[in-house]
Amino acid sequence: MTTPFSRRNLLGQAGLAFGGLVTLGALQGCGEDETTPPPVVTGPTVKDFPYEQHLTADYRLDPAPVREAAYHAYYAGGCCHGAYSALLGHLATTAGKPFDLLPLDFGKFGGGGVAGYGSICGAVLGGVMVINMIVSDATARGNMMTDLMRWYEGEAFPKYVPAAVDAAETGTTKDFSASGIATLQRAPRSHLCHASVSDWCAANGVTAGGADKKARCARLTADVAGKVAEILNTYLAGTGTYAAAAIDAASATCLGCHPGSSTSRPVASGMACTTCHTDKATNHP
Amino acid sequence: MTTPFSRRNLLGQAGLAFGGLVTLGALQGCGEDETTPPPVVTGPTVKDFPYEQHLTADYRLDPAPVREAAYHAYYAGGCCHGAYSALLGHLATTAGKPFDLLPLDFGKFGGGGVAGYGSICGAVLGGVMVINMIVSDATARGNMMTDLMRWYEGEAFPKYVPAAVDAAETGTTKDFSASGIATLQRAPRSHLCHASVSDWCAANGVTAGGADKKARCARLTADVAGKVAEILNTYLAGTGTYAAAAIDAASATCLGCHPGSSTSRPVASGMACTTCHTDKATNHP
Repeated sequence: MTTPFSRRNLLGQAGLAFGGLVTLGALQGCGEDETTPPPVVTGPTVKDFPYEQHLTADYRLDPAPVREAAYHAYYAGGCCHGAYSALLGHLATTAGKPFDLLPLDFGKFGGGGVAGYGSICGAVLGGVMVINMIVSDATARGNMMTDLMRWYEGEAFPKYVPAAVDAAETGTTKDFSASGIATLQRAPRSHLCHASVSDWCAANGVTAGGADKKARCARLTADVAGKVAEILNTYLAGTGTYAAAAIDAASATCLGCHPGSSTSRPVASGMACTTCHTDKATNHP
Repeated sequence: MTTPFSRRNLLGQAGLAFGGLVTLGALQGCGEDETTPPPVVTGPTVKDFPYEQHLTADYRLDPAPVREAAYHAYYAGGCCHGAYSALLGHLATTAGKPFDLLPLDFGKFGGGGVAGYGSICGAVLGGVMVINMIVSDATARGNMMTDLMRWYEGEAFPKYVPAAVDAAETGTTKDFSASGIATLQRAPRSHLCHASVSDWCAANGVTAGGADKKARCARLTADVAGKVAEILNTYLAGTGTYAAAAIDAASATCLGCHPGSSTSRPVASGMACTTCHTDKATNHP
């Protein structure tokens, strides 16, 4: 772990009058003893966005505690909350302002692909919101999000084995231990919640609402949150740029005949095509 | 338009010492004249979430200016930015803190279905984030998001005719005027960006990257942002509950054989099925 405070934070902490600020000591010395001094505004505010500017050059996230926190937070508020609160909480603890000024519960809406709608995986969405919070370069930011979603499509989940099984995790019938978890893994081939969950549950013979599905998604949430930490670290250690993995070969073939520039059947998409459009994978056109 | 400030804001504005605060006057009276007084923290902070608690009982959004702002903001930062910044900007202007403490640019990542990936429509995502910001009841919040996505699937877009065409809108070949726009409208049948855009562009014989597509999505962004304002108003005028429209009949039939409780082929989804799974619409199973 690197120095947790930026130069702006350090100035604020040292109590220097800077940029229109006064110190707590100065306030305590005035004649208004009967009132509590107001919180002194030091360091960046929520509006000083994006927040990369407030991180020291050597700041890095630690993916290990982020994964464990994400796994447990899944049981407190779902997949989007798990990833979002674990990453934001880690940033708040290790980097301070403005991360510690934000509500940790903002991601609870995203569970089950946004309010259970089965759209974008909530863990991915939670991670995307944190990437968005930090990265200032629009091209790099978009490539990091694309890379996260492509990685998700092809990665075999779940991988994470928690240090301690959560107290809320009861009733599972599958073996999620370090020795058994590999037998449960599936690559979702889609970043959409309902496709990801349905495929895994069918392959493992379990319902989409049961304890095994939750245990899978809690560990997937940890995997995604850890990957986001790694993607951010790669960016922070680099030159301000980021390259995304290319689209899969089958989908690249699709886009060969369906480019966005077509006027008859354009497709503007970066995701895998044939996972959903199974009827287009053979005997097409 | 209703009273723009909550009781908490009014207390803060009146300069009353309340909840650990001191007044600007008290600070100016102490012996530290050579330093500028710090910003006095009054009213709610970003962490006092969700923000419904800071709105007066009769607070309502005005959908008309939200629509016009969303249309123009599309050209400044895409669909998600259009909806998000128009709604947040309206809330900041009319309700104050904590909305005016948030960065207006947070939604720029969501354009084109999250960084151009073709996932959830960015205008919908921008609206979802603002609903999430306000609504405290988890059930009502989820129903509002579901209702927005279902409405999007079935609504014929684009509808909005801006008061003034944006300066960046040049090169269109279609008639987006009040008299011509109805001939361009299509219901997306999916809340996913790439499905929505591809269908509209193919039906109108235009590319997915050209001026007509942008003019369509700018107006759709206005339509979605206005709908979010209306959904929020319905909630704010009600009893703290909200009911979502039912899933379409064809998808309800799908879920009859594919309930989440199945162990062989469960589907946990709230979205329209047959738009993407066209091969399941006939001769299935």
